Amino acid sequence: MKSLNRILVLFIGLLFFNTVVSAQTSNSLYQVSTINAVLQGVYDGQMNMKELKQHGNFGIGTFEGLDGEMIALDGQFYQVKSTGNVVLVSDQVKTPFADVMDFKSEKTAEIPDVLTFNELEKALDGIIQDKNYIYAIRIDGVFSGTTRSIPGKTKPYPSLTDAAKTQSVFDIQNTKGTIVGFLCPQYINGINVTGYHLHFISDDRKSGGHILSGGIKSGVVKIERITDFRMILPNSDAFQQAVLNKDYSKELNGVEKSK
Amino acid sequence: MKSLNRILVLFIGLLFFNTVVSAQTSNSLYQVSTINAVLQGVYDGQMNMKELKQHGNFGIGTFEGLDGEMIALDGQFYQVKSTGNVVLVSDQVKTPFADVMDFKSEKTAEIPDVLTFNELEKALDGIIQDKNYIYAIRIDGVFSGTTRSIPGKTKPYPSLTDAAKTQSVFDIQNTKGTIVGFLCPQYINGINVTGYHLHFISDDRKSGGHILSGGIKSGVVKIERITDFRMILPNSDAFQQAVLNKDYSKELNGVEKSK
Repeated sequence: MKSLNRILVLFIGLLFFNTVVSAQTSNSLYQVSTINAVLQGVYDGQMNMKELKQHGNFGIGTFEGLDGEMIALDGQFYQVKSTGNVVLVSDQVKTPFADVMDFKSEKTAEIPDVLTFNELEKALDGIIQDKNYIYAIRIDGVFSGTTRSIPGKTKPYPSLTDAAKTQSVFDIQNTKGTIVGFLCPQYINGINVTGYHLHFISDDRKSGGHILSGGIKSGVVKIERITDFRMILPNSDAFQQAVLNKDYSKELNGVEKSK
Repeated sequence: MKSLNRILVLFIGLLFFNTVVSAQTSNSLYQVSTINAVLQGVYDGQMNMKELKQHGNFGIGTFEGLDGEMIALDGQFYQVKSTGNVVLVSDQVKTPFADVMDFKSEKTAEIPDVLTFNELEKALDGIIQDKNYIYAIRIDGVFSGTTRSIPGKTKPYPSLTDAAKTQSVFDIQNTKGTIVGFLCPQYINGINVTGYHLHFISDDRKSGGHILSGGIKSGVVKIERITDFRMILPNSDAFQQAVLNKDYSKELNGVEKSK
Protein backbone atom coordinates (compact mmCIF):
# COMPACT_ATOMS: atom_id res chain seq x y z
CA MET A 1 0.00 0.00 0.00
CA LYS A 2 2.92 2.35 0.64
CA SER A 3 4.13 2.17 -2.95
CA LEU A 4 0.55 2.64 -4.15
CA ASN A 5 0.32 5.85 -2.13
CA ARG A 6 3.63 7.04 -3.51
CA ILE A 7 2.49 6.46 -7.07
CA LEU A 8 -0.78 8.29 -6.42
CA VAL A 9 1.12 11.29 -5.02
CA LEU A 10 3.46 11.25 -8.02
CA PHE A 11 0.48 10.96 -10.34
CA ILE A 12 -1.39 13.92 -8.85
CA GLY A 13 1.81 15.95 -8.60
CA LEU A 14 2.82 15.45 -12.22
CA LEU A 15 -0.69 16.05 -13.50
CA PHE A 16 -0.82 19.34 -11.57
CA PHE A 17 2.62 20.38 -12.80
CA ASN A 18 1.69 19.58 -16.37
CA THR A 19 -1.49 21.65 -16.15
CA VAL A 20 0.25 24.63 -14.57
CA VAL A 21 2.99 24.65 -17.19
CA SER A 22 0.55 24.42 -20.09
CA ALA A 23 -1.80 27.08 -18.71
CA GLN A 24 1.04 29.56 -18.32
CA THR A 25 -0.24 32.87 -19.64
CA SER A 26 2.13 35.46 -18.25
CA ASN A 27 1.48 38.97 -19.61
CA SER A 28 -0.82 37.54 -22.22
CA LEU A 29 -3.90 39.01 -23.85
CA TYR A 30 -6.55 36.98 -25.63
CA GLN A 31 -8.63 38.67 -28.32
CA VAL A 32 -11.70 37.54 -30.23
CA SER A 33 -11.89 38.95 -33.81
CA THR A 34 -10.55 42.32 -34.97
CA ILE A 35 -11.78 45.89 -34.52
CA ASN A 36 -12.01 46.33 -38.30
CA ALA A 37 -14.48 43.44 -38.43
CA VAL A 38 -16.61 45.15 -35.74
CA LEU A 39 -16.45 48.42 -37.68
CA GLN A 40 -17.79 46.54 -40.72
CA GLY A 41 -20.73 45.06 -38.79
CA VAL A 42 -19.41 41.56 -38.07
CA TYR A 43 -21.48 41.19 -34.87
CA ASP A 44 -22.12 37.43 -34.94
CA GLY A 45 -21.29 35.76 -31.65
CA GLN A 46 -18.00 33.90 -31.98
CA MET A 47 -17.39 32.58 -28.49
CA ASN A 48 -19.60 32.16 -25.44
CA MET A 49 -18.77 33.53 -21.98
CA LYS A 50 -18.03 30.07 -20.62
CA GLU A 51 -15.17 29.68 -23.08
CA LEU A 52 -14.08 33.32 -22.92
CA LYS A 53 -13.73 33.09 -19.13
CA GLN A 54 -11.15 30.33 -19.64
CA HIS A 55 -8.89 33.03 -21.08
CA GLY A 56 -9.16 35.74 -18.46
CA ASN A 57 -10.87 37.45 -15.54
CA PHE A 58 -10.43 41.02 -16.78
CA GLY A 59 -11.23 42.84 -19.99
CA ILE A 60 -13.68 44.60 -22.27
CA GLY A 61 -15.74 43.81 -25.35
CA THR A 62 -19.28 43.62 -26.64
CA PHE A 63 -21.98 40.99 -27.20
CA GLU A 64 -23.71 39.30 -30.13
CA GLY A 65 -25.54 41.88 -32.24
CA LEU A 66 -23.46 44.64 -30.58
CA ASP A 67 -25.83 44.35 -27.62
CA GLY A 68 -24.20 46.55 -24.98
CA GLU A 69 -20.75 46.97 -23.47
CA MET A 70 -18.76 44.22 -21.76
CA ILE A 71 -16.68 44.74 -18.64
CA ALA A 72 -14.90 41.81 -17.02
CA LEU A 73 -13.57 42.59 -13.58
CA ASP A 74 -12.22 40.21 -10.94
CA GLY A 75 -13.69 37.27 -12.84
CA GLN A 76 -17.22 38.71 -13.12
CA PHE A 77 -18.49 39.44 -16.62
CA TYR A 78 -20.94 42.36 -16.82
CA GLN A 79 -23.14 43.70 -19.60
CA VAL A 80 -24.01 47.41 -19.59
CA LYS A 81 -27.25 47.43 -21.56
CA SER A 82 -28.44 50.34 -23.68
CA THR A 83 -31.15 50.89 -21.04
CA GLY A 84 -28.33 51.69 -18.60
CA ASN A 85 -29.00 48.50 -16.61
CA VAL A 86 -25.96 46.47 -15.64
CA VAL A 87 -26.34 42.69 -15.46
CA LEU A 88 -24.10 39.69 -14.95
CA VAL A 89 -23.78 37.81 -18.23
CA SER A 90 -24.76 34.15 -18.45
CA ASP A 91 -22.31 31.59 -19.77
CA GLN A 92 -24.32 31.01 -22.95
CA VAL A 93 -24.12 34.60 -24.19
CA LYS A 94 -21.68 35.07 -27.06
CA THR A 95 -19.26 37.81 -28.01
CA PRO A 96 -18.24 39.00 -31.50
CA PHE A 97 -15.28 40.99 -30.09
CA ALA A 98 -13.51 40.93 -26.74
CA ASP A 99 -10.12 41.34 -25.08
CA VAL A 100 -9.57 39.37 -21.89
CA MET A 101 -6.64 38.37 -19.70
CA ASP A 102 -5.68 37.33 -16.22
CA PHE A 103 -4.78 40.74 -14.86
CA LYS A 104 -1.76 40.99 -12.56
CA SER A 105 -0.70 44.51 -11.65
CA GLU A 106 2.96 45.23 -12.42
CA LYS A 107 2.94 48.90 -11.47
CA THR A 108 0.66 50.97 -9.23
CA ALA A 109 0.46 54.75 -9.34
CA GLU A 110 -1.80 57.51 -8.09
CA ILE A 111 -3.40 59.67 -10.77
CA PRO A 112 -3.79 63.41 -10.15
CA ASP A 113 -7.46 64.46 -10.21
CA VAL A 114 -8.42 65.04 -13.83
CA LEU A 115 -11.66 66.42 -15.27
CA THR A 116 -11.41 65.52 -18.94
CA PHE A 117 -10.57 62.39 -20.94
CA ASN A 118 -7.73 64.28 -22.56
CA GLU A 119 -6.20 65.02 -19.14
CA LEU A 120 -6.74 61.40 -18.13
CA GLU A 121 -4.87 60.23 -21.24
CA LYS A 122 -2.01 62.63 -20.47
CA ALA A 123 -1.81 61.40 -16.87
CA LEU A 124 -1.68 57.79 -18.09
CA ASP A 125 0.92 58.74 -20.72
CA GLY A 126 3.14 59.93 -17.88
CA ILE A 127 2.84 56.58 -16.10
CA ILE A 128 3.14 54.30 -19.15
CA GLN A 129 6.56 54.93 -20.67
CA ASP A 130 7.15 52.32 -23.37
CA LYS A 131 4.61 52.83 -26.10
CA ASN A 132 5.57 49.78 -28.18
CA TYR A 133 3.50 47.34 -26.12
CA ILE A 134 -0.16 46.81 -25.41
CA TYR A 135 -1.05 47.72 -21.81
CA ALA A 136 -3.90 46.54 -19.63
CA ILE A 137 -5.19 49.35 -17.41
CA ARG A 138 -7.26 49.29 -14.24
CA ILE A 139 -8.15 52.53 -12.46
CA ASP A 140 -10.09 52.57 -9.20
CA GLY A 141 -11.46 55.99 -8.25
CA VAL A 142 -14.37 58.42 -8.47
CA PHE A 143 -15.51 58.87 -12.06
CA SER A 144 -17.40 61.82 -13.54
CA GLY A 145 -18.21 61.86 -17.23
CA THR A 146 -20.27 60.19 -19.93
CA THR A 147 -20.44 56.58 -21.01
CA ARG A 148 -22.38 54.91 -23.78
CA SER A 149 -23.97 51.64 -24.69
CA ILE A 150 -25.48 50.62 -28.02
CA PRO A 151 -28.80 48.72 -28.35
CA GLY A 152 -28.46 45.28 -29.95
CA LYS A 153 -28.89 45.08 -33.71
CA THR A 154 -30.52 42.50 -35.96
CA LYS A 155 -29.39 41.33 -39.38
CA PRO A 156 -28.49 42.71 -41.81
CA TYR A 157 -26.12 44.37 -39.35
CA PRO A 158 -25.31 48.06 -39.84
CA SER A 159 -21.71 49.32 -39.65
CA LEU A 160 -20.47 50.42 -36.24
CA THR A 161 -20.67 54.05 -37.39
CA ASP A 162 -24.38 53.64 -38.17
CA ALA A 163 -25.05 51.51 -35.08
CA ALA A 164 -23.42 54.14 -32.84
CA LYS A 165 -26.00 56.70 -34.03
CA THR A 166 -28.54 54.84 -31.87
CA GLN A 167 -26.33 54.75 -28.76
CA SER A 168 -27.58 55.72 -25.31
CA VAL A 169 -25.34 58.18 -23.45
CA PHE A 170 -25.23 58.10 -19.67
CA ASP A 171 -24.21 61.02 -17.50
CA ILE A 172 -22.36 59.65 -14.48
CA GLN A 173 -21.25 62.01 -11.71
CA ASN A 174 -18.97 61.46 -8.68
CA THR A 175 -19.41 57.72 -8.79
CA LYS A 176 -16.99 55.30 -7.18
CA GLY A 177 -15.98 52.53 -9.50
CA THR A 178 -13.40 50.98 -11.76
CA ILE A 179 -12.14 51.79 -15.24
CA VAL A 180 -11.05 48.73 -17.22
CA GLY A 181 -9.33 48.92 -20.55
CA PHE A 182 -6.32 48.85 -22.82
CA LEU A 183 -3.75 51.02 -24.54
CA CYS A 184 -2.66 49.75 -27.96
CA PRO A 185 0.20 51.10 -30.08
CA GLN A 186 -0.42 52.48 -33.57
CA TYR A 187 0.93 49.34 -35.26
CA ILE A 188 -2.07 47.40 -33.87
CA ASN A 189 -4.29 49.59 -36.10
CA GLY A 190 -6.96 47.47 -37.82
CA ILE A 191 -6.68 44.76 -35.17
CA ASN A 192 -7.64 46.69 -32.04
CA VAL A 193 -8.47 50.25 -31.00
CA THR A 194 -5.22 52.22 -30.98
CA GLY A 195 -4.71 54.59 -28.03
CA TYR A 196 -6.79 54.28 -24.88
CA HIS A 197 -10.00 52.23 -24.95
CA LEU A 198 -11.65 52.33 -21.52
CA HIS A 199 -14.91 51.06 -20.03
CA PHE A 200 -16.30 51.98 -16.60
CA ILE A 201 -18.35 50.13 -14.00
CA SER A 202 -19.55 51.56 -10.68
CA ASP A 203 -18.80 49.90 -7.37
CA ASP A 204 -22.53 49.29 -6.85
CA ARG A 205 -22.64 47.64 -10.32
CA LYS A 206 -25.56 49.87 -11.29
CA SER A 207 -23.92 52.05 -13.96
CA GLY A 208 -21.13 51.97 -16.50
CA GLY A 209 -20.34 51.66 -20.18
CA HIS A 210 -17.80 52.64 -22.81
CA ILE A 211 -16.22 55.93 -21.69
CA LEU A 212 -16.86 58.78 -24.14
CA SER A 213 -15.64 61.62 -21.94
CA GLY A 214 -14.76 62.48 -18.37
CA GLY A 215 -12.12 62.24 -15.71
CA ILE A 216 -11.38 60.67 -12.37
CA LYS A 217 -10.67 61.79 -8.80
CA SER A 218 -8.69 59.91 -6.15
CA GLY A 219 -7.64 57.53 -8.91
CA VAL A 220 -5.25 54.66 -8.38
CA VAL A 221 -4.04 53.04 -11.59
CA LYS A 222 -2.61 49.56 -12.00
CA ILE A 223 -1.03 48.50 -15.28
CA GLU A 224 0.27 45.31 -16.86
CA ARG A 225 2.44 45.25 -19.97
CA ILE A 226 1.35 42.67 -22.56
CA THR A 227 4.12 40.75 -24.33
CA ASP A 228 2.03 37.78 -25.50
CA PHE A 229 -0.88 38.65 -27.76
CA ARG A 230 -3.26 36.03 -29.13
CA MET A 231 -6.04 36.73 -31.60
CA ILE A 232 -8.81 34.39 -32.75
CA LEU A 233 -10.18 35.15 -36.21
CA PRO A 234 -13.86 34.26 -36.73
CA ASN A 235 -14.63 31.39 -39.06
CA SER A 236 -17.73 32.92 -40.61
CA ASP A 237 -19.03 34.15 -43.96
CA ALA A 238 -19.52 37.62 -42.50
CA PHE A 239 -15.85 37.82 -41.48
CA GLN A 240 -14.69 36.39 -44.80
CA GLN A 241 -16.72 38.89 -46.79
CA ALA A 242 -16.02 42.01 -44.73
CA VAL A 243 -13.74 44.67 -46.20
CA LEU A 244 -11.03 44.58 -43.55
CA ASN A 245 -8.01 45.73 -45.51
CA LYS A 246 -8.73 49.44 -45.23
CA ASP A 247 -7.66 52.14 -42.80
CA TYR A 248 -10.74 52.88 -40.69
CA SER A 249 -8.92 55.11 -38.16
CA LYS A 250 -11.19 58.06 -38.89
CA GLU A 251 -14.43 56.06 -38.57
CA LEU A 252 -13.11 54.42 -35.40
CA ASN A 253 -12.14 57.71 -33.81
CA GLY A 254 -15.63 58.99 -34.62
CA VAL A 255 -17.43 56.21 -32.75
CA GLU A 256 -14.97 55.73 -29.88
CA LYS A 257 -14.99 59.17 -28.36
CA SER A 258 -17.71 61.41 -29.76
CA LYS A 259 -21.23 61.71 -28.38
CA MET B 1 -0.17 -5.77 -8.35
CA LYS B 2 -3.21 -5.75 -10.66
CA SER B 3 -4.58 -2.52 -9.15
CA LEU B 4 -1.10 -1.01 -9.26
CA ASN B 5 -0.91 -1.71 -12.98
CA ARG B 6 -4.33 -0.23 -13.50
CA ILE B 7 -3.32 2.95 -11.71
CA LEU B 8 -0.14 3.21 -13.76
CA VAL B 9 -2.10 2.86 -16.99
CA LEU B 10 -4.58 5.49 -15.80
CA PHE B 11 -1.70 7.72 -14.80
CA ILE B 12 0.09 7.52 -18.13
CA GLY B 13 -3.17 7.81 -20.04
CA LEU B 14 -4.32 10.92 -18.20
CA LEU B 15 -0.91 12.57 -18.45
CA PHE B 16 -0.89 11.95 -22.20
CA PHE B 17 -4.43 13.23 -22.60
CA ASN B 18 -3.61 16.35 -20.58
CA THR B 19 -0.57 17.10 -22.73
CA VAL B 20 -2.41 16.58 -25.99
CA VAL B 21 -5.29 18.82 -24.94
CA SER B 22 -3.01 21.62 -23.72
CA ALA B 23 -0.81 21.52 -26.80
CA GLN B 24 -3.83 21.83 -29.08
CA THR B 25 -2.85 24.40 -31.70
CA SER B 26 -5.37 23.99 -34.45
CA ASN B 27 -4.83 26.49 -37.29
CA SER B 28 -2.54 28.51 -35.07
CA LEU B 29 0.52 30.56 -35.93
CA TYR B 30 3.17 31.57 -33.42
CA GLN B 31 5.21 34.70 -34.13
CA VAL B 32 8.28 36.13 -32.42
CA SER B 33 8.44 39.96 -32.54
CA THR B 34 7.03 42.19 -35.31
CA ILE B 35 8.23 43.00 -38.83
CA ASN B 36 8.44 46.71 -37.98
CA ALA B 37 10.95 45.86 -35.23
CA VAL B 38 13.07 43.94 -37.76
CA LEU B 39 12.87 46.86 -40.19
CA GLN B 40 14.20 49.09 -37.40
CA GLY B 41 17.17 46.81 -36.68
CA VAL B 42 15.89 44.94 -33.62
CA TYR B 43 18.00 41.84 -34.36
CA ASP B 44 18.68 40.64 -30.80
CA GLY B 45 17.89 36.96 -30.33
CA GLN B 46 14.62 36.61 -28.44
CA MET B 47 14.04 32.89 -28.39
CA ASN B 48 16.27 29.90 -29.04
CA MET B 49 15.45 27.10 -31.48
CA LYS B 50 14.76 24.65 -28.69
CA GLU B 51 11.87 26.80 -27.48
CA LEU B 52 10.74 27.86 -30.95
CA LYS B 53 10.44 24.21 -32.01
CA GLN B 54 7.87 23.73 -29.22
CA HIS B 55 5.59 25.98 -31.26
CA GLY B 56 5.83 24.43 -34.68
CA ASN B 57 7.55 22.28 -37.29
CA PHE B 58 7.07 24.64 -40.26
CA GLY B 59 7.83 28.29 -40.88
CA ILE B 60 10.24 31.05 -41.77
CA GLY B 61 12.28 33.71 -40.00
CA THR B 62 15.81 34.89 -39.41
CA PHE B 63 18.55 34.57 -36.76
CA GLU B 64 20.28 36.77 -34.20
CA GLY B 65 22.08 39.64 -35.93
CA LEU B 66 19.97 38.99 -39.07
CA ASP B 67 22.36 36.13 -39.81
CA GLY B 68 20.71 34.37 -42.75
CA GLU B 69 17.29 33.05 -43.64
CA MET B 70 15.33 30.49 -41.61
CA ILE B 71 13.27 27.71 -43.14
CA ALA B 72 11.53 25.18 -40.93
CA LEU B 73 10.21 22.18 -42.81
CA ASP B 74 8.90 18.87 -41.46
CA GLY B 75 10.41 19.68 -38.06
CA GLN B 76 13.91 20.46 -39.34
CA PHE B 77 15.15 24.04 -38.86
CA TYR B 78 17.58 25.23 -41.55
CA GLN B 79 19.74 28.33 -41.91
CA VAL B 80 20.57 29.58 -45.39
CA LYS B 81 23.79 31.49 -44.77
CA SER B 82 24.93 34.48 -46.80
CA THR B 83 27.64 32.20 -48.23
CA GLY B 84 24.86 30.14 -49.76
CA ASN B 85 25.55 27.21 -47.46
CA VAL B 86 22.55 25.57 -45.85
CA VAL B 87 22.96 24.12 -42.35
CA LEU B 88 20.75 22.62 -39.69
CA VAL B 89 20.43 25.05 -36.80
CA SER B 90 21.44 24.03 -33.31
CA ASP B 91 19.01 24.38 -30.42
CA GLN B 92 21.01 27.21 -28.83
CA VAL B 93 20.77 29.59 -31.79
CA LYS B 94 18.31 32.43 -31.23
CA THR B 95 15.84 34.22 -33.48
CA PRO B 96 14.78 37.89 -33.43
CA PHE B 97 11.82 37.20 -35.75
CA ALA B 98 10.08 34.02 -36.81
CA ASP B 99 6.70 32.56 -37.73
CA VAL B 100 6.19 28.89 -36.95
CA MET B 101 3.30 26.46 -36.73
CA ASP B 102 2.37 22.82 -36.94
CA PHE B 103 1.44 22.69 -40.59
CA LYS B 104 -1.57 20.60 -41.58
CA SER B 105 -2.66 20.91 -45.21
CA GLU B 106 -6.33 21.82 -45.59
CA LYS B 107 -6.33 22.17 -49.37
CA THR B 108 -4.06 20.80 -52.07
CA ALA B 109 -3.90 22.17 -55.61
CA GLU B 110 -1.67 21.95 -58.65
CA ILE B 111 -0.10 25.21 -59.79
CA PRO B 112 0.27 25.89 -63.51
CA ASP B 113 3.91 26.35 -64.50
CA VAL B 114 4.84 29.97 -63.83
CA LEU B 115 8.03 31.82 -64.67
CA THR B 116 7.78 34.97 -62.56
CA PHE B 117 6.98 35.78 -58.95
CA ASN B 118 4.10 37.92 -60.15
CA GLU B 119 2.59 34.94 -61.99
CA LEU B 120 3.17 32.77 -58.94
CA GLU B 121 1.29 35.29 -56.79
CA LYS B 122 -1.59 35.34 -59.27
CA ALA B 123 -1.73 31.54 -59.35
CA LEU B 124 -1.84 31.46 -55.52
CA ASP B 125 -4.47 34.23 -55.50
CA GLY B 126 -6.67 31.93 -57.58
CA ILE B 127 -6.34 29.14 -55.02
CA ILE B 128 -6.64 31.22 -51.85
CA GLN B 129 -10.07 32.83 -51.91
CA ASP B 130 -10.67 34.49 -48.53
CA LYS B 131 -8.14 37.24 -48.11
CA ASN B 132 -9.09 38.17 -44.52
CA TYR B 133 -6.98 35.43 -42.93
CA ILE B 134 -3.31 34.62 -42.69
CA TYR B 135 -2.40 31.55 -44.78
CA ALA B 136 0.47 29.12 -44.43
CA ILE B 137 1.73 27.99 -47.82
CA ARG B 138 3.84 25.00 -48.86
CA ILE B 139 4.71 24.43 -52.51
CA ASP B 140 6.66 21.40 -53.68
CA GLY B 141 8.02 21.66 -57.22
CA VAL B 142 10.88 22.72 -59.45
CA PHE B 143 12.02 26.27 -58.67
CA SER B 144 13.84 28.69 -60.96
CA GLY B 145 14.64 32.19 -59.75
CA THR B 146 16.69 34.19 -57.28
CA THR B 147 16.89 34.00 -53.51
CA ARG B 148 18.85 36.06 -51.00
CA SER B 149 20.45 35.81 -47.64
CA ILE B 150 21.94 38.62 -45.56
CA PRO B 151 25.27 38.30 -43.69
CA GLY B 152 24.96 38.65 -39.91
CA LYS B 153 25.37 42.14 -38.47
CA THR B 154 27.02 43.39 -35.29
CA LYS B 155 25.86 46.20 -33.02
CA PRO B 156 24.95 48.94 -33.50
CA TYR B 157 22.57 47.17 -35.87
CA PRO B 158 21.70 48.88 -39.16
CA SER B 159 18.10 49.08 -40.40
CA LEU B 160 16.87 46.23 -42.59
CA THR B 161 17.02 48.54 -45.61
CA ASP B 162 20.73 49.18 -44.98
CA ALA B 163 21.44 45.56 -44.02
CA ALA B 164 19.81 44.32 -47.24
CA LYS B 165 22.36 46.32 -49.25
CA THR B 166 24.93 43.69 -48.25
CA GLN B 167 22.74 40.72 -49.22
CA SER B 168 24.00 37.80 -51.29
CA VAL B 169 21.76 36.89 -54.22
CA PHE B 170 21.67 33.28 -55.43
CA ASP B 171 20.62 32.23 -58.91
CA ILE B 172 18.83 28.88 -58.64
CA GLN B 173 17.71 27.06 -61.76
CA ASN B 174 15.47 24.00 -62.27
CA THR B 175 15.95 22.85 -58.71
CA LYS B 176 13.54 20.49 -56.96
CA GLY B 177 12.57 21.74 -53.56
CA THR B 178 9.98 23.31 -51.32
CA ILE B 179 8.68 26.84 -50.91
CA VAL B 180 7.63 27.66 -47.34
CA GLY B 181 5.87 30.87 -46.38
CA PHE B 182 2.84 32.92 -45.55
CA LEU B 183 0.24 35.25 -46.98
CA CYS B 184 -0.85 38.03 -44.63
CA PRO B 185 -3.75 40.45 -45.16
CA GLN B 186 -3.17 44.21 -45.29
CA TYR B 187 -4.50 44.72 -41.74
CA ILE B 188 -1.47 42.79 -40.41
CA ASN B 189 0.72 45.65 -41.74
CA GLY B 190 3.41 46.59 -39.17
CA ILE B 191 3.15 43.18 -37.52
CA ASN B 192 4.13 40.91 -40.40
CA VAL B 193 4.92 41.12 -44.10
CA THR B 194 1.66 41.75 -45.97
CA GLY B 195 1.14 39.78 -49.16
CA TYR B 196 3.24 36.72 -49.95
CA HIS B 197 6.47 36.11 -48.02
CA LEU B 198 8.15 32.94 -49.29
CA HIS B 199 11.43 31.14 -48.63
CA PHE B 200 12.84 28.23 -50.66
CA ILE B 201 14.92 25.18 -49.80
CA SER B 202 16.12 22.56 -52.28
CA ASP B 203 15.41 18.86 -51.83
CA ASP B 204 19.15 18.19 -51.45
CA ARG B 205 19.26 20.90 -48.72
CA LYS B 206 22.14 22.61 -50.50
CA SER B 207 20.47 25.84 -51.66
CA GLY B 208 17.68 28.18 -50.71
CA GLY B 209 16.85 31.55 -49.18
CA HIS B 210 14.29 34.32 -49.19
CA ILE B 211 12.69 34.35 -52.65
CA LEU B 212 13.26 37.62 -54.53
CA SER B 213 12.03 36.51 -57.92
CA GLY B 214 11.17 33.44 -59.93
CA GLY B 215 8.56 30.83 -60.56
CA ILE B 216 7.85 27.14 -60.22
CA LYS B 217 7.15 24.17 -62.47
CA SER B 218 5.20 21.00 -61.59
CA GLY B 219 4.18 22.78 -58.41
CA VAL B 220 1.80 21.29 -55.87
CA VAL B 221 0.60 23.77 -53.26
CA LYS B 222 -0.80 22.94 -49.85
CA ILE B 223 -2.39 25.65 -47.72
CA GLU B 224 -3.67 26.06 -44.18
CA ARG B 225 -5.85 28.94 -43.06
CA ILE B 226 -4.76 30.52 -39.76
CA THR B 227 -7.51 31.51 -37.34
CA ASP B 228 -5.41 31.62 -34.16
CA PHE B 229 -2.53 34.09 -34.24
CA ARG B 230 -0.14 34.50 -31.32
CA MET B 231 2.62 37.10 -31.17
CA ILE B 232 5.41 37.41 -28.59
CA LEU B 233 6.74 40.95 -28.14
CA PRO B 234 10.43 41.15 -27.15
CA ASN B 235 11.21 42.39 -23.66
CA SER B 236 14.29 44.39 -24.61
CA ASP B 237 15.55 47.99 -24.64
CA ALA B 238 16.01 47.79 -28.41
CA PHE B 239 12.35 46.86 -28.92
CA GLN B 240 11.18 49.48 -26.45
CA GLN B 241 13.17 52.22 -28.14
CA ALA B 242 12.44 51.33 -31.76
CA VAL B 243 10.15 53.61 -33.75
CA LEU B 244 7.46 51.04 -34.55
CA ASN B 245 4.41 53.24 -34.95
CA LYS B 246 5.08 54.24 -38.53
CA ASP B 247 4.02 52.86 -41.90
CA TYR B 248 7.09 51.17 -43.33
CA SER B 249 5.27 49.50 -46.27
CA LYS B 250 7.50 51.23 -48.82
CA GLU B 251 10.76 50.27 -47.08
CA LEU B 252 9.49 46.72 -46.60
CA ASN B 253 8.48 46.34 -50.21
CA GLY B 254 11.97 47.56 -51.16
CA VAL B 255 13.79 44.87 -49.19
CA GLU B 256 11.37 42.00 -49.69
CA LYS B 257 11.35 41.76 -53.44
CA SER B 258 14.04 43.85 -55.10
CA LYS B 259 17.54 42.64 -55.87
